[in-house]
Amino acid sequence: MIAKTPKAPYYAVIFTSIGTEVREGYESTADRMLELAKQQDGYLGIESAKEEIGITVSYWSSLEAIRNWKMNAEHLMAQEKGRKEWYQNYKTRICLVERDYEFNK
Amino acid sequence: MIAKTPKAPYYAVIFTSIGTEVREGYESTADRMLELAKQQDGYLGIESAKEEIGITVSYWSSLEAIRNWKMNAEHLMAQEKGRKEWYQNYKTRICLVERDYEFNK
Repeated sequence: MIAKTPKAPYYAVIFTSIGTEVREGYESTADRMLELAKQQDGYLGIESAKEEIGITVSYWSSLEAIRNWKMNAEHLMAQEKGRKEWYQNYKTRICLVERDYEFNK
Repeated sequence: MIAKTPKAPYYAVIFTSIGTEVREGYESTADRMLELAKQQDGYLGIESAKEEIGITVSYWSSLEAIRNWKMNAEHLMAQEKGRKEWYQNYKTRICLVERDYEFNK
């Protein structure tokens, strides 16, 4: 679903990735990270899609909320496992959403 | 591919969408818009994936470059057709990328 974010400004983390052939443990960890992210202070929403590359955009109320999530102990272990096993390449971009608009039929 | 963007800061446009059942003309227009975007001043790269929702993130050197692309005549026609035919909902977020980092195996 398209994330229902509040009035701008707020923050977005764009995480773009290319996976390895290893998928073992990936799906359950991804599900758990989603569950955990939703419990963080300042979490606003998430959007995700994957074809050749995976794109996950998570939305946050502040840079502090992003930092806290990045440093969450269980998330740190998942990140390490991601680098060892699941990801060939990734790029993380920390963004200030300055403006947004939407269309609904 | 993961877009090779320059050193931050630069801009990102996160376009998240849910399609209608109408796909006629969509693919060729999307291809043409990609070709046209790449020719714009200030275009830096694009990343795209689609599952339940479509996420396209395009990267730009300035707000002016984003505005020029939004107002491009052929792109305006495509946007109108998108609202009439191809999109049920979409949300566009204009973002300043403040920081980024990457991992490569």
